[in-house]
Amino acid sequence: MENRNILKKDERIDQLYSQDVRIIQNPHYFAFSLDAVLLANFVRPNHRQKLKIVDLCAGNGAIGIFLHDKLGGTFTEVELQPQIADMAERTIMLNDLQDRYTVINDDIANVNDYISKDSIDIVLCNPPYFPVTAQSQKNPNKALAIARHEIATDLVTVIQKMSGLLKMNGHGYLVHRPDRLGEILQVCQENRLAPKRIQFIHPKPDRDANILLLEVIKDGRPGGVKVVPPLIVHGADNEYTPAIQELLYGK
Amino acid sequence: MENRNILKKDERIDQLYSQDVRIIQNPHYFAFSLDAVLLANFVRPNHRQKLKIVDLCAGNGAIGIFLHDKLGGTFTEVELQPQIADMAERTIMLNDLQDRYTVINDDIANVNDYISKDSIDIVLCNPPYFPVTAQSQKNPNKALAIARHEIATDLVTVIQKMSGLLKMNGHGYLVHRPDRLGEILQVCQENRLAPKRIQFIHPKPDRDANILLLEVIKDGRPGGVKVVPPLIVHGADNEYTPAIQELLYGK
Repeated sequence: MENRNILKKDERIDQLYSQDVRIIQNPHYFAFSLDAVLLANFVRPNHRQKLKIVDLCAGNGAIGIFLHDKLGGTFTEVELQPQIADMAERTIMLNDLQDRYTVINDDIANVNDYISKDSIDIVLCNPPYFPVTAQSQKNPNKALAIARHEIATDLVTVIQKMSGLLKMNGHGYLVHRPDRLGEILQVCQENRLAPKRIQFIHPKPDRDANILLLEVIKDGRPGGVKVVPPLIVHGADNEYTPAIQELLYGK
Repeated sequence: MENRNILKKDERIDQLYSQDVRIIQNPHYFAFSLDAVLLANFVRPNHRQKLKIVDLCAGNGAIGIFLHDKLGGTFTEVELQPQIADMAERTIMLNDLQDRYTVINDDIANVNDYISKDSIDIVLCNPPYFPVTAQSQKNPNKALAIARHEIATDLVTVIQKMSGLLKMNGHGYLVHRPDRLGEILQVCQENRLAPKRIQFIHPKPDRDANILLLEVIKDGRPGGVKVVPPLIVHGADNEYTPAIQELLYGK
């Protein structure tokens, strides 16, 4: 599809060169960040054509679009905020992916009004990371506050919905903050999601991790957690490391 | 103390050059490994002279001895197996540390017969890592099987005893296997131990972590988990990395 007329006020198109896709971004509402690229990279390939994939808290749908080639089947993107869900719709058109991608503009709490329980193979989620504080409530930009803080949803709801949607042995993928690792693993295990694979992302070689990537399996056997080699984002020279450059720009 | 006459059959003395200490080892019963060096390195320094430290599943007491300079106060080493507790006793003498170190030769399940609840500042533990299997029961070397497999104790007992001994805001340090991360964090949180700091050890840069180091705080606030930069044991050349060489041999 042509770019003309597809953009609204303040919007731009960002390209992820490594995946040859274009994403509609709006810095006032929502713009995907490195977290989305990292989660898509962490997902294991699966080219089955009947695969059913749901992205909860989808934003502009970037993660699902990044996975158009790595995952077969159909994607359903669930996004609460109307103006952001609309960006997701137009991003799908921009990439000519309407036959495989659908957007649901609703609260993830209502996801079972649209999608049956125990019916999904893969659930993706890049949820709001931060607990609500007095400050986050006062953020003048409500759209960004909802995307970042647990104002409209929270970790327990996200994990419960992920678990409810997944078939037995379905896979869930979550990107979140390592400082909540204890809570995240506990809530997963209380909701039939066995942690199976974890990757930590460090901003620099000598800094604590600031991003956590987690793969869970519904009703998976306990134990057997793999902590895979970490990724480092910036080298000592402050430039992206070769691994991150490859994720962003391709080989 | 002189080395003469302190060794029994099949025993040897290993030196940890970085700490200038000597440890009595017996490959048939128990020999400390890199795990013990790594846990000691992970412990944060605290030179308070009134510090009370307990090492559960102490083996030959290597971890406590490695910390003689980094931690002030007195150490109590709890070890079930008589011949290994005896090695711990003689290791203390070998390093002339009798004024600060005591060995209790009993099951950690009975530790409160010797030490009051809620009385300890720091609890260290390098427990048996592996769940009991049909094979582990049949291991012809019972001493090694007990040190490695959950025959005489298990994760829940270890964590319950750690929590029971610690004062409020006391610190626990555990070395374990990353494949049990989900279970470890869950059992800690069910027993008033908040995970606070984690380090993963990878055998090589491109391999999954095989050692987990965990610091917990009794009655600590949830959240705020730090995942510190990992350590890599061997480089691409199969030699110890500089970081590990420093832990073993000093600067």
